[in-house]
Amino acid sequence: MHRQKQLGTPEPAGGYPERVTITNMSPELDGGRYPIKRIIGDEIKVSANIFADGHEVLSAVLLHRTDKQSLWNEVPMRALDNDRWEASFRVSSIGEHVYACQAWIDAFRTWRRDMIKRVEAGQQASVDLLIGVDLIAQAAERALGAESKKLRTLADSVRANAERDPGYAAEQALDERVARLMDRYPDRRLASMYEKSLRVVVDREKARFSSWYEMFPRSCSTKPGRHGTFRDCIARLPYVAEMGFDVVYLPPIHPIGCVNRKGKNNSTIAAPDDVGSPWAIGSREGGHKSIHRQLGTIDDFRALVDATRQRGMEVALDIAFQCAPDHPYVREHPEWFHIRPDGTVQYAENPPKKYEDIVPLNFDTEQWRELWVELKDVILYWIGHGVRIFRVDNPHTKPFSFWEWLIVEIKREYPDVVFLAEAFTRPKVMYELAKRGFSQSYTYFAWRNTQWELKEYFTELTQTDVREFFRPNLWPNTPDILTENLQLGGRASFMARAVLAATLGANYGIYGPAFELCENRAIYPGSEEYLDSEKYQLRNWDLTRPDSLKDWIARINQARRENPCLQSNAGLRFHSIENDNFIAYSKSTEDRSSLIVVVVNLNPFQKHWSWLTLPLETLGLAEDQPYQMHDLLNDARYIWRGPRNYVELDPAVAPAHIFRVRRRVRSEHGTDYFE
Amino acid sequence: MHRQKQLGTPEPAGGYPERVTITNMSPELDGGRYPIKRIIGDEIKVSANIFADGHEVLSAVLLHRTDKQSLWNEVPMRALDNDRWEASFRVSSIGEHVYACQAWIDAFRTWRRDMIKRVEAGQQASVDLLIGVDLIAQAAERALGAESKKLRTLADSVRANAERDPGYAAEQALDERVARLMDRYPDRRLASMYEKSLRVVVDREKARFSSWYEMFPRSCSTKPGRHGTFRDCIARLPYVAEMGFDVVYLPPIHPIGCVNRKGKNNSTIAAPDDVGSPWAIGSREGGHKSIHRQLGTIDDFRALVDATRQRGMEVALDIAFQCAPDHPYVREHPEWFHIRPDGTVQYAENPPKKYEDIVPLNFDTEQWRELWVELKDVILYWIGHGVRIFRVDNPHTKPFSFWEWLIVEIKREYPDVVFLAEAFTRPKVMYELAKRGFSQSYTYFAWRNTQWELKEYFTELTQTDVREFFRPNLWPNTPDILTENLQLGGRASFMARAVLAATLGANYGIYGPAFELCENRAIYPGSEEYLDSEKYQLRNWDLTRPDSLKDWIARINQARRENPCLQSNAGLRFHSIENDNFIAYSKSTEDRSSLIVVVVNLNPFQKHWSWLTLPLETLGLAEDQPYQMHDLLNDARYIWRGPRNYVELDPAVAPAHIFRVRRRVRSEHGTDYFE
Repeated sequence: MHRQKQLGTPEPAGGYPERVTITNMSPELDGGRYPIKRIIGDEIKVSANIFADGHEVLSAVLLHRTDKQSLWNEVPMRALDNDRWEASFRVSSIGEHVYACQAWIDAFRTWRRDMIKRVEAGQQASVDLLIGVDLIAQAAERALGAESKKLRTLADSVRANAERDPGYAAEQALDERVARLMDRYPDRRLASMYEKSLRVVVDREKARFSSWYEMFPRSCSTKPGRHGTFRDCIARLPYVAEMGFDVVYLPPIHPIGCVNRKGKNNSTIAAPDDVGSPWAIGSREGGHKSIHRQLGTIDDFRALVDATRQRGMEVALDIAFQCAPDHPYVREHPEWFHIRPDGTVQYAENPPKKYEDIVPLNFDTEQWRELWVELKDVILYWIGHGVRIFRVDNPHTKPFSFWEWLIVEIKREYPDVVFLAEAFTRPKVMYELAKRGFSQSYTYFAWRNTQWELKEYFTELTQTDVREFFRPNLWPNTPDILTENLQLGGRASFMARAVLAATLGANYGIYGPAFELCENRAIYPGSEEYLDSEKYQLRNWDLTRPDSLKDWIARINQARRENPCLQSNAGLRFHSIENDNFIAYSKSTEDRSSLIVVVVNLNPFQKHWSWLTLPLETLGLAEDQPYQMHDLLNDARYIWRGPRNYVELDPAVAPAHIFRVRRRVRSEHGTDYFE
Repeated sequence: MHRQKQLGTPEPAGGYPERVTITNMSPELDGGRYPIKRIIGDEIKVSANIFADGHEVLSAVLLHRTDKQSLWNEVPMRALDNDRWEASFRVSSIGEHVYACQAWIDAFRTWRRDMIKRVEAGQQASVDLLIGVDLIAQAAERALGAESKKLRTLADSVRANAERDPGYAAEQALDERVARLMDRYPDRRLASMYEKSLRVVVDREKARFSSWYEMFPRSCSTKPGRHGTFRDCIARLPYVAEMGFDVVYLPPIHPIGCVNRKGKNNSTIAAPDDVGSPWAIGSREGGHKSIHRQLGTIDDFRALVDATRQRGMEVALDIAFQCAPDHPYVREHPEWFHIRPDGTVQYAENPPKKYEDIVPLNFDTEQWRELWVELKDVILYWIGHGVRIFRVDNPHTKPFSFWEWLIVEIKREYPDVVFLAEAFTRPKVMYELAKRGFSQSYTYFAWRNTQWELKEYFTELTQTDVREFFRPNLWPNTPDILTENLQLGGRASFMARAVLAATLGANYGIYGPAFELCENRAIYPGSEEYLDSEKYQLRNWDLTRPDSLKDWIARINQARRENPCLQSNAGLRFHSIENDNFIAYSKSTEDRSSLIVVVVNLNPFQKHWSWLTLPLETLGLAEDQPYQMHDLLNDARYIWRGPRNYVELDPAVAPAHIFRVRRRVRSEHGTDYFE
């Protein structure tokens, strides 16, 4: 049982009863079971309830170290109201860090506080003075070198003066410099530690701020009907970079299964030239560590990785731990699969539906250790070829304990690896995957459309404990998800949803070129599946179409790069706007030097206007001075004054403003100038 | 570190990776560090988040046992919304109980759910049928006797029919009776346990519902100037019982120190006939296990304990772990005290104030084990003489770990013992003492006077997690506390404060006869100390005074006894009343069969009226029917209808209503009758 002791004879853990109690340390996730997440350079503010019996003075320190250090760094904590204490530390390396808290009854500070009162009351207190002398002499034993000597000399001197000139002796002992010196050598033998060490996983900045572009390499060919290659992908990079993305995410690049291969539009019978789904991984040509031959060679892949990096972007690979029936694992390791009573391998199903082109791995196998190690080896293989970002397909259908093990294992050696969890399942399961280690997570954003839905959801994600472990990555579309909103709302919807994803979330992504080309044809009404989906066939996209949103997206990504407040979700605030067709919110950095206000008309069909109310003081704007609203989407500038201002948005032109708020810096000859 | 494992090779705790996750079990206090509190007979509703990867069906059980049993009792849990599960159990014995939770992936239920879908879709599924047969055969191995045979026979029969008549075979396997039988033998080898066992301390009813009367035995003499005795106390019992109290609490009854004894009104020099403070414990005549000679003998004390019990009341003793300078401990165990550099024993002080009639025990002594054991022995001594309720003086000046040890130790052997913590210190310290084991706690009630203050405070005490561990005991006065409200507000204030204490708190007490005689003279203006305090001198009280509140108090206590809703704080709700001079609230049992509405005019000087709004539906009252408000303080009855009604209270007559709400049961000849 939790911290249960044998209580029959008094015998506390440390051999001495604990007097200081430390509780409710924060941030702490599920009683310390899971680490919180932070980014390198972040300041972590830690607080705790610290108190003891009686009325003595306490001292406390925040302890922190990386999981590789054995010695703690210490930061003194300061007492706030009502027995709450606080301190902070900055994490200056990626990887796992640990923090804890220690507190003790400070005998010298207690003595000093009381002695000052006695002196002020004019009491004869020479015996009390000697108590202080003893404390100084004891500290001298703990102190080092010159300071030890200094304390010993002081103790002797105060003792000598205590009788003949107690006033002077008290002055000596109460000197502030003595207090500071004594603070360096407190008696901490009976100090209390918080009962747990808490963990924080520190990631590189990409985990907090990233702009993803998903594309199918096989559709990157410029020649209709020809299967795209990694070389074609390299040629496509300038196009992606110009839009301002920094992660190029590729669906699985491995050999595609032939057995039970799906045809165009998910038909169960494939034509001979059908290319199949990249998520049906594995064939006689290889499995998760091989490359689909039509895409190129491992060297071509390596060239793509390098070329991407040269353009300031990174390749993200899809990790889908499932197999086609002809995957080599099935033959070499039948023990990793469910075998049916008739001896066949169990296919994937959601009864009564069957997915016979996929066989799931059996994580309940008795050979799970070998399976886990092999799957880890898959990740290591691609790390070995320069990949540091993995988007994990359907993680919620594999054990949480597997992911926790895998991610800790990988990040111990490669703390710069980023894992994105593709899970659109139940809320608690999605949160659990994040707690177990995923750096970023897909969200329900795609289905949150109204002002109320968006506010409610993003308040939960950014204003509650969820923000300690769950980093949302917002996708307006994916190859699996063409929302009704996009299907029906047309180009204005695509424009609005891109702005929402890119400004509500510091991490976001689009599946292109379907997105920027406003592809909105579903396979049938009421379905979220694309017609002629790239999942089952090659597509040839005309990137030069005049109605392409690539410039709109480039503007959005530029705003994200140039405004630090958009690179985090910490400063998100929703604002009051009278017309419910709109949503309005701001993002700001803690020092409010970077401030963006976003206004979106959520109705793709109608022009709307409204009054928007901004909390000027909270946003660091003066009540009595004009400020400039600079729309980064079209460079228009408006002068506003006071909290209540007019907005109007016509979706036929542009459904959104991304305002950079510029404060007035000076006025000359009747003209205002803004920063 | 918390649950940290060596992750290098996959090696989970149980030798198998855990698939079901159980988190956020409730009720749980500070991560399970402290037990919650309940009363015998209570139903404990337990819930937890339970979920797994994938889409299989889960089963879960709530486990509970007393700390003396080794086998768990099991209650099936049911799934609510959003992966939250729930079950409850009833505690039928006092002492410590443990509860936990176990969940597993239910292979048969999963198979059955999917098989039904296949059958409904008309699929050929004979291979899937055989999977079910295997599950039934495996359950037969786990089952006992006849049921094992039944399952085996069934498995054989379904297998035999699977080929020749798969429809019939499926019907056999999917029979609901088979499902119920299979539920009895699930495969729980890979079940997950919640990571902690949680504890609940179950007390007897007195811990939740008690009415205390504090009196100084030495003032119980009927002859002015004669020192009262235990025999006088026995003679006083009918008076106390008539008022309806059930706990008679006595300040310390031990020999009173002579060294540095305080005189009347806390003067530092005592006259030869001054009796001293009962909290300056110990003299040559003995210490904490002795009786002050003038009160009588241990046999007299025992007689008082028995006589009290015969009247349906109990004696509560004061435990003040501190000593007068002439306490035998000082001589026999100088190592249990702080010794000053001049060799004297450290007296109590709050610099620059000195309390030289008291020397505190030094809990930091190296001989703390012997000290703890001796102090436990003090409690055991009085338990041996029939005492089961202890009011602990200043517990916040002794280590929390001491109290936790002491109370667990005592209650392990005597689970019926009730400890009341007298601490008016900082909020977190008061809560910590309750968490460490005190059954009841003093509160800030004495200083909460306005409607806002009372609402705020009692919402915190009864509507938050605080209610899981902190049982408030409300005192309008104590020998140390004569509030300004009572000093200035006179008789009306005493009447109002008695009603508030007795109806806001299921546990309450008064210090009498000072209270019922409305003693309101302070030692000097601005002080909360009584003039001529019984702490330092004998008092002779005229219990027959016509202005005594004894009948008012008797009415209040009768209302408490006869209305179960007043015996708990669970059903407290504040109601909207327009005039802020009032406070209005109700208490009801969970089934709403017992319902009391209290209205108090908090202004002792002025008559006030107001409109009171009751949430009829919440209180189980019909919108369209009259109900009767029966004032239990004066037997007046009012017929109300609808949510909004008029109230008027004149403090010169009575500042409060305690309404028993009586529902209309029938109407005859145009007359309404109420229950």
